[in-house]
Amino acid sequence: MLQHNFVTIADVQAAQKRLLGIAHKTPVLTSRTVNDRTNSQVFFKCENFQRTGAFKFRGAYNALAQLPEAQKQKGVLTYSSGNHAQAIALAGQLLHIPTTIVMPDDAPAVKQTATRGYGAEVILYNRHTTNREELAQTLAGDCAQRSAEGNRGLILIPPYDHPHVVAGQGTAALELIEEVGQLDLLLVCCGGGGLLSGCAIATKALLPECQVIGVEPELADDATRSFHSKTLQTVTNPNTIADGARTPSLGKITFPLVLHYVDDMVTVSESAILRTMFFLWERLKIVVEPTGVLAAAALLEGEVKAPGARIGVIITGGNVDLAQIRVLIPF
Amino acid sequence: MLQHNFVTIADVQAAQKRLLGIAHKTPVLTSRTVNDRTNSQVFFKCENFQRTGAFKFRGAYNALAQLPEAQKQKGVLTYSSGNHAQAIALAGQLLHIPTTIVMPDDAPAVKQTATRGYGAEVILYNRHTTNREELAQTLAGDCAQRSAEGNRGLILIPPYDHPHVVAGQGTAALELIEEVGQLDLLLVCCGGGGLLSGCAIATKALLPECQVIGVEPELADDATRSFHSKTLQTVTNPNTIADGARTPSLGKITFPLVLHYVDDMVTVSESAILRTMFFLWERLKIVVEPTGVLAAAALLEGEVKAPGARIGVIITGGNVDLAQIRVLIPF
Repeated sequence: MLQHNFVTIADVQAAQKRLLGIAHKTPVLTSRTVNDRTNSQVFFKCENFQRTGAFKFRGAYNALAQLPEAQKQKGVLTYSSGNHAQAIALAGQLLHIPTTIVMPDDAPAVKQTATRGYGAEVILYNRHTTNREELAQTLAGDCAQRSAEGNRGLILIPPYDHPHVVAGQGTAALELIEEVGQLDLLLVCCGGGGLLSGCAIATKALLPECQVIGVEPELADDATRSFHSKTLQTVTNPNTIADGARTPSLGKITFPLVLHYVDDMVTVSESAILRTMFFLWERLKIVVEPTGVLAAAALLEGEVKAPGARIGVIITGGNVDLAQIRVLIPF
Repeated sequence: MLQHNFVTIADVQAAQKRLLGIAHKTPVLTSRTVNDRTNSQVFFKCENFQRTGAFKFRGAYNALAQLPEAQKQKGVLTYSSGNHAQAIALAGQLLHIPTTIVMPDDAPAVKQTATRGYGAEVILYNRHTTNREELAQTLAGDCAQRSAEGNRGLILIPPYDHPHVVAGQGTAALELIEEVGQLDLLLVCCGGGGLLSGCAIATKALLPECQVIGVEPELADDATRSFHSKTLQTVTNPNTIADGARTPSLGKITFPLVLHYVDDMVTVSESAILRTMFFLWERLKIVVEPTGVLAAAALLEGEVKAPGARIGVIITGGNVDLAQIRVLIPF
């Protein structure tokens, strides 16, 4: 029996209170060029301007803020080479909670540096020789032994399959709707489904008639297949440029939420992702990472059409490596 | 005798009323990274999000809106391959004023297309064989003859040396100060001095104690030399990447305004411009053109130091050609 009451609008609203004055209230941008091209009115919620450069800070902070005091002293652990790592690190810094981030040793140096810059302990592993779940057990024990506070382990805060993370991510949609009012359609990208399910919960509570559509890369279409088949599907190391959507599947918590609250799922091609990324750079003047443009790509590339509609689009992050991007500029 | 009463705060305030609901009220972004690095509190006024991608729309619209009715029917003419061209074209479209833009025939196709997209007539000339002032006379006559309205010519709206243009540009600072309140220092880039003088007028009226500093490329330091020598200096085709600051000198109107209202002028190197551009892309997630980062570069590269101060920085535009930028990414 799949449950969809792990997270409610009350949780999202409580998260919003926790984040008040701590997370950025990110700007909503509009573009006449986009409106003309799509024959609709489009509102881009720009989470690339969120602290640490992505929406992930919302969920991470909301989760860490609710830890029991004893656990706050012991600290938290997570696995990520991406935006969740920096989000956990900054949330830990702000809440005075020790954080340990496990990253593959080939993660870009700039991400290692940024994560350490927020005060996290970064532990590297060789992903070809080490099983990260086993490493987890070892590290939780090791770190606890090193802690002056006691002998219990660190708690793992996963990147999406956690009710407090989902509730935190939902505040992005809540803020958008509070600012722009009525929407007929909300487009949200989907990796593990934390942002998508959180935003869908908020949207359906505030605007029951608003359709919510999740967007994935074609090359990592597990959630789309899961949604249509109503059975959890997986992908393995999909070769999409949208690295935030390379997650193997929806989670135990996010899958039932997506099934219950989301109206449809669509996919976009790799070339659509790249075209949209550079379109947003050139026209909206915002730096968006490949995963961050998925929702916009579905609209701008015609996968979703809603003439005359008021459409919200979540732009999820802006953490791109210019050296990587340089080779992708298609002209 | 140099006059500095061509433009007053009342003109800037009147411009703000004209632009209300027409120009974007552009967002003000902040960055903890920048605050930490500069030991100050920095407010970036992001005119790269302005209509047509640059502050130029403010001045262009303010000038065109004040034309006599008869002149509005005949139309306007300007020379520009840059942001002023698109600004005039869009202002003309909104005000139903025919616009003619004269561009060198080697101007990027993307700029020609964008300018035509706003409804302007674009006339190309060979800059090696044609004198653009002579072309002006010819075209004004030609276009007038083609007009059904009569036989009088088009009026030239120059990119900066015009009181209505200066007043329009000053609204950027007015808006910034209305949003963030007290500032101790405002940094503004300087090409022909339209933005700098307009912003200085607004700032000194609202915050008399706030210092206003203009910033130029080292390679195009005419205004800095003019400011310090109090005699108009020029440059000829300076080879700076900041193409908006390649103007030969301050103007008859802007020079006395800069002398009267501005506190100091500094310059930044080409490498400082590039470093700052990519810093803003990577950290603030905003696409800024080389000219648009001049003011930020002065601060981030230490040409201007103001520890503890509240500092406004005008980010002037975001119209970059990614194909051009690709070869500049320094890593």
